[in-house]
Amino acid sequence: MRLVHFMLSTGKIRLGALDGDNIIDLNSHANWVPIDLVRFLHEHENAYEKLKLVAADPLNTIYPVDRVHLMPPIQGPDKILGIAHNYSDYCDEKQIEYPSEPIVFNRFASTIIGPYDRIKHPTCSKAVEWEVELVVVMGKIARNVKAANAFDYVFGYTAAQDLTATDWMSKSGGQYVLCKNMDHFCPIGPCLVTKDEIPDPHNLFAKTWVNGVLKQNGNTRNLLFKIDELIEHLSSVLTLLPGDLICTGTPSGVGETRSPPEFLKPGDVLTSEIEGVGKLKNYVVDYESHIILKL
Amino acid sequence: MRLVHFMLSTGKIRLGALDGDNIIDLNSHANWVPIDLVRFLHEHENAYEKLKLVAADPLNTIYPVDRVHLMPPIQGPDKILGIAHNYSDYCDEKQIEYPSEPIVFNRFASTIIGPYDRIKHPTCSKAVEWEVELVVVMGKIARNVKAANAFDYVFGYTAAQDLTATDWMSKSGGQYVLCKNMDHFCPIGPCLVTKDEIPDPHNLFAKTWVNGVLKQNGNTRNLLFKIDELIEHLSSVLTLLPGDLICTGTPSGVGETRSPPEFLKPGDVLTSEIEGVGKLKNYVVDYESHIILKL
Repeated sequence: MRLVHFMLSTGKIRLGALDGDNIIDLNSHANWVPIDLVRFLHEHENAYEKLKLVAADPLNTIYPVDRVHLMPPIQGPDKILGIAHNYSDYCDEKQIEYPSEPIVFNRFASTIIGPYDRIKHPTCSKAVEWEVELVVVMGKIARNVKAANAFDYVFGYTAAQDLTATDWMSKSGGQYVLCKNMDHFCPIGPCLVTKDEIPDPHNLFAKTWVNGVLKQNGNTRNLLFKIDELIEHLSSVLTLLPGDLICTGTPSGVGETRSPPEFLKPGDVLTSEIEGVGKLKNYVVDYESHIILKL
Repeated sequence: MRLVHFMLSTGKIRLGALDGDNIIDLNSHANWVPIDLVRFLHEHENAYEKLKLVAADPLNTIYPVDRVHLMPPIQGPDKILGIAHNYSDYCDEKQIEYPSEPIVFNRFASTIIGPYDRIKHPTCSKAVEWEVELVVVMGKIARNVKAANAFDYVFGYTAAQDLTATDWMSKSGGQYVLCKNMDHFCPIGPCLVTKDEIPDPHNLFAKTWVNGVLKQNGNTRNLLFKIDELIEHLSSVLTLLPGDLICTGTPSGVGETRSPPEFLKPGDVLTSEIEGVGKLKNYVVDYESHIILKL
């Protein structure tokens, strides 16, 4: 299943399942399905099987994808954990050592925006960098989980742009909270793909284009700490909750290591794709801009 | 007002206002008041005035404090921001330079526990430290707020223990996410005191006792970055939301700098107090413990 949150022209928000160019409205008949996927994952042990049954109901309302607004597939998770320096090609390009253990940073849920939403460029940074990432969506409470069982706790995957104000990375005593948590710094989507559709998450291309020019062209096979290792490590320290996101890291091709360095500016179009998940397309606009750009 | 969340013996959760040894149940008649204070702050511009009116209703149900279970006064905020090295006496004791700008770290909302809840000692750390803190509770959306107006955006204050696994501070590439976000690492309460009751938040004692022995005995007058400066700084980078918490830092007397170092262990009783806010009392238990200790 490819799950989405979407907004109708009436302003109503729904949970849906993509079916080609259509969306099956999972809230059209099954009134016990909350709109909120995080809550659904918390409340239902067999969330996948239940949603699959709901999606199969022939009485569900169908909408063409291009008639609705796609929203972030996950909203309001407790945790968004990011992993820095987690691709071998990223570390090679930056000429930094491979980390001996995962370098974990955070995002707050309010930084999430949708797959086609505008990124308001922060006025306090002149060095905002793109970083495409494969994102793991947790499906179950995970504590002290071993790598061998880690995928039992995964619900699925989505894609993200892990935007970073690189000129703030060394501020705040080197803590990444501020450089990673400016408003709109976490576009995710376009959908949440359940894990059955991605048999090998460690062999997916991860690409970023800026204004149509390919900037990142990596593959998740180069992840230094694999998804199962990350879940073992993180869950040995804290409890992962349903709906929690793990942004697994970004490959080479980021803006800061280019010569000269390249950063996002208002007017840019940022396109990101994770193989098997789909494409995000976000316009970068002035923070105070009220211009509605047509995507 | 001194606002609390509390649980009745029936398991029902309520929002209340402390009145001496009693609690006024704010949900007893005003059914438009949500239990969730964060949501109330989001939905009501004049939250203080509205809750004041509700609290004055003579038909409200009253409960003796000692007949209910006090829960965290704020649950599910978007952001919990902590400030490291923010007391002059703390920096002096640790022999570290005063920071030139706030050092910001995060907590996730799921680390919050109540003022009398048990702290489950993490199995992965042997060096869990106590850190009493004055916590600012934001009342309004704050972006690019100047220090001169910062208190207009404050709803009130609470107290916290900013528990820290000091043996994890240098792990994770020096990022504080893991050392600050182990389960139950953020006891808060006992109440949320609205700002009208604390005319000068920069002159409050902040104390910690472990098993009845005074360990921290500081005063918020020694904050290096004052509350209004913190709000100006943080809101110049990101948007602060109603219900967001700013843990302002901890004074000297923490465990790591003692000779020999002292850390929390199962069986300890951790008591914390911020003047004008009140006292937290949390037992430390084995992570896997199911023993219910009488407080």
